Amino acid sequence: MVSQIALLAGDGIGIEIMAEAEKLLRALDIKGLSLIHADCGGTAYHKHGHPLPKATLDIAKNSDAILFGAVGDPSCDNLDRHLRPEQAVLGLRSELGLFANLRPAKMMSGMEGSSSLRANISQNIDMLIVRELNGDVYFGEKGMRQTDTGLRQGYDIMSYDEDEVRRIAHVGFKAAQGRQGKLCSVDKANVLETSQLWRDVVIEVAAEYPDVELSHMYVDNAAMQMVKAPGQFDVILTGNLFGDILSDLASMCVGSIGLLASASLSQGRLGLYEPIHGSAPDIAGQQIANPLAMILSTAMMFRHSLDNEEIAAKIEQAVAKTLADNILGRDLGGLASTSEIGDAVIARL
Amino acid sequence: MVSQIALLAGDGIGIEIMAEAEKLLRALDIKGLSLIHADCGGTAYHKHGHPLPKATLDIAKNSDAILFGAVGDPSCDNLDRHLRPEQAVLGLRSELGLFANLRPAKMMSGMEGSSSLRANISQNIDMLIVRELNGDVYFGEKGMRQTDTGLRQGYDIMSYDEDEVRRIAHVGFKAAQGRQGKLCSVDKANVLETSQLWRDVVIEVAAEYPDVELSHMYVDNAAMQMVKAPGQFDVILTGNLFGDILSDLASMCVGSIGLLASASLSQGRLGLYEPIHGSAPDIAGQQIANPLAMILSTAMMFRHSLDNEEIAAKIEQAVAKTLADNILGRDLGGLASTSEIGDAVIARL
Ligand SMILES: CC(C)[C@H](C(=O)O)[C@@H](O)C(=O)O
Ligand SMILES: CC(C)[C@H](C(=O)O)[C@@H](O)C(=O)O
Repeated sequence: MVSQIALLAGDGIGIEIMAEAEKLLRALDIKGLSLIHADCGGTAYHKHGHPLPKATLDIAKNSDAILFGAVGDPSCDNLDRHLRPEQAVLGLRSELGLFANLRPAKMMSGMEGSSSLRANISQNIDMLIVRELNGDVYFGEKGMRQTDTGLRQGYDIMSYDEDEVRRIAHVGFKAAQGRQGKLCSVDKANVLETSQLWRDVVIEVAAEYPDVELSHMYVDNAAMQMVKAPGQFDVILTGNLFGDILSDLASMCVGSIGLLASASLSQGRLGLYEPIHGSAPDIAGQQIANPLAMILSTAMMFRHSLDNEEIAAKIEQAVAKTLADNILGRDLGGLASTSEIGDAVIARL
Repeated sequence: MVSQIALLAGDGIGIEIMAEAEKLLRALDIKGLSLIHADCGGTAYHKHGHPLPKATLDIAKNSDAILFGAVGDPSCDNLDRHLRPEQAVLGLRSELGLFANLRPAKMMSGMEGSSSLRANISQNIDMLIVRELNGDVYFGEKGMRQTDTGLRQGYDIMSYDEDEVRRIAHVGFKAAQGRQGKLCSVDKANVLETSQLWRDVVIEVAAEYPDVELSHMYVDNAAMQMVKAPGQFDVILTGNLFGDILSDLASMCVGSIGLLASASLSQGRLGLYEPIHGSAPDIAGQQIANPLAMILSTAMMFRHSLDNEEIAAKIEQAVAKTLADNILGRDLGGLASTSEIGDAVIARL
């Protein structure tokens, strides 16, 4: 059986870090893996006139998993929204039904020094953010219109229905069962009806998971608690918009955003795996980006889409050894280049 | 000329901290200040059946300034939204046109130890968050409805029109002129049309403030930067929802949320002054709440609504001395009670 992996490098440092992931996959030399490249983001817009060309979408749909670098290109800032690089990742998420975004944030041993938080606060961080990825204000009707008095107005409809909440809630509760059994649902139910529905449905679903301890937190407080006492969190379950903000925040609490991987899963096997960081145009092309988040995303791919826990663990151990051996990129105060870090991981497989 | 100050203590620790603000006002013994109490929040609901009774709203409207404690009462969690304690503050903000929320976050000398951030990161924090308070997804149409397929759905419309953005942008630019001349506008323009309009209008307004250096940041990145390098920020200008999250986060970066005051201003003189923290039902009634955020809110009132910079500075200096003399509440690792802290400030006026 052949598994097809789509490699969508995208823009900026996406290209450099994807090269390292590909090098790693080739070094692993696993039977039955076929790799196929496709353009997306600003790169695809400049070449083909669209950030997510039909050919790329077709390749993604026909693959078993997608490795995604990063998109974002300042030269596209003034394009119509549907032509901007971000539409590549938003389009893939919705077209492929990738509704469950898993963003683990764990303090890796030896990395305490790179967190902004005091060591006694950061040392116990081990959380998983489960972010809904197909709904919320991201995908509601939106546009520019005129008010009755002739003013320009921008609007976006935020909403969730019970099925959307239920299916991501199950992902959250199941994840908690496999961890420390604690789920904190984050919303803004004191202001938003979307959040009230979210909270109601999460409470309903909780009845099926009596072994999981459920709590609720408002998003403003959650942002604060993540800095005050991040060790309190096990699984955080939240919507698309709040998850976007909280997962970036969590990544900074554990140190470098250059270390954090993510998985975006559908109901079936298909998943998209990408670093949490963006395309970082300011440092692109200089071989100074940290490829570890991309490499750890590759490990997640083996775990979630290819059912190969062995290879996933092998990659993760090689990354841990690389860090323990002090082979660090600029983001962590070291001098290793992008490809040197990639080589170091391969050498430790 | 008599200035009327409405004292709205609200719920939980709001009652204890307001008592200290009132004690301070009486100790200051300023001619022509008349103080008037009114109920709001859960307290008002339990007494009068509504979190913002008409009598309270009338008193607020007829006052020159409002001191507000905190609202929030778990016994009201299952009430209809319009009867919940939070509606008191939301109702006052909209009924009185309090559109500009100023939330300063500055590391006070001697407080570095209470920040979660490393001392080298937290030492330079001195930012002002200017949050729009009358629009956004907070005040759009919202509700529960059924989808075509009969599912429960919660929805909330997010929107801003150009006038709403323009008036808060002017507040932000003017504030920056009085500080270090830097304004960072936070939005999510890569996804939201509301944010795109926000960004467009902020850029237009910037033309009137050539002396202010304007930058833009996505909200996910802003949350991260606030933990990574908070010293980079001078004035942050943002919408209602993002401002809610970022200001709580900022408060944790400088240490105790028990120290942070806020002002909510209208086009005229009228303002509402409240601590950033909530009603903290878990510690209410025990005399362990820190009244300094409430007392510093009182200082802001003298500055912004009563045009009395002298008294504002006097209060702020007394608070700084109290902290320097190590008279600290539980939240800062000390043992002083709520009223002991209030007394200490008065003794240092
Ligand atoms: C690029 C952007 C549209 C995206 C998002 O907001 O979801 C990114 O910030 C992320 O978190 O993956
Ligand atoms: C109580 C709540 C409605 C309020 C808000 O969300 O604005 C509070 O969190 C605040 O920041 O003042």
